[in-house]
Amino acid sequence: MSRQEQVTGALRLIPARKGVAERVKAGQIVTVINTHGSQVVDSWAFNAEDPGEFMSMEHSRGAMLRVNPKVGDTLRSNKRRAMLTLTEDTSGGIHDTLIAACDRYRYEQLGHVGHHDSCTDNLAHALAAFGITGAETPSPLNLFMNIPVRADGSVSFEPPVSTPGSHVRLRAEMDLIVVFSACPQDLVPVNGAACTPQDAHYTID
Amino acid sequence: MSRQEQVTGALRLIPARKGVAERVKAGQIVTVINTHGSQVVDSWAFNAEDPGEFMSMEHSRGAMLRVNPKVGDTLRSNKRRAMLTLTEDTSGGIHDTLIAACDRYRYEQLGHVGHHDSCTDNLAHALAAFGITGAETPSPLNLFMNIPVRADGSVSFEPPVSTPGSHVRLRAEMDLIVVFSACPQDLVPVNGAACTPQDAHYTID
Repeated sequence: MSRQEQVTGALRLIPARKGVAERVKAGQIVTVINTHGSQVVDSWAFNAEDPGEFMSMEHSRGAMLRVNPKVGDTLRSNKRRAMLTLTEDTSGGIHDTLIAACDRYRYEQLGHVGHHDSCTDNLAHALAAFGITGAETPSPLNLFMNIPVRADGSVSFEPPVSTPGSHVRLRAEMDLIVVFSACPQDLVPVNGAACTPQDAHYTID
Repeated sequence: MSRQEQVTGALRLIPARKGVAERVKAGQIVTVINTHGSQVVDSWAFNAEDPGEFMSMEHSRGAMLRVNPKVGDTLRSNKRRAMLTLTEDTSGGIHDTLIAACDRYRYEQLGHVGHHDSCTDNLAHALAAFGITGAETPSPLNLFMNIPVRADGSVSFEPPVSTPGSHVRLRAEMDLIVVFSACPQDLVPVNGAACTPQDAHYTID
């Protein structure tokens, strides 16, 4: 099945290393496509009427009773309301809810000197286009990110298991502003062993 | 060894169902004592000079490479700076970084009608005493809370494994405002099978 058969809405770009925001109505389906197969997409959702209500990993884990959403699970807000339901997943089902968005401090600690794009800055820039400034950075839903949790509670940063063209579908449970960032991490292999951030795509149906 | 021998500073109360805040200087040691053995203590830390910098579970997990802090691990801020280091733990080593603080929405969803104390409100009240209002509710370090993560990524809410008088010691790595809430949860057994919130205590040395 080609990507064109899988998705029906217009294919929209999440440029490598950058973020996008979109308004989505309750009931619409957002499909996030891992076009090249190994790109992590940091994802957020905000109540379209109140950016102080946002998708919260710590509230979602308590409701899902899982650290990693599976098809049928609903991500919840910091007011414990339904925001996004995972309705389909062809990516292998490995996503992350545990790790903060990358930020300038992360790249400084990894030894990078000078400007580096980050998912935290991408979120701020994407929200600013909707007139929202000064928002906190909620802990993201890191689509396709592979952070295994072992029996002793240890975690590690591993390359994604997703394949080119694989996707997740998320149903909006309220009117939302969704934000996606094609993670610019190129110093550890979260975006694949080549450490090369790539474009991803999405549709809204 | 009695509790009096274990701790040297004045014993201070965290009243059952309520929260307290304290200013702590870099280098001081905060000892949190599970006086009755099965009380979860939701814990936060804020930079004393900037409440916009706070202890962050999602940043800490990425640095500790663990979901559950062990002796020697350092909890970090949303700017990835060292805030608190776990230097001693006689409680069995089971704490939680995954689950949100309880809030009015949690009790409503559990069927409670009318007012119920919550760790989220306790945090807000405790910070207000320092003139800090409108702060976000960071995901807490839930001392003594037992949320096992299984190989399939599922989690469950279990009674603590800690024993009466057991404690953790945390060294402040910067000047902090720390907040502790003796979790008022009495509808699920996170505070022990009896579902009865109890006092806890702490010292600052």
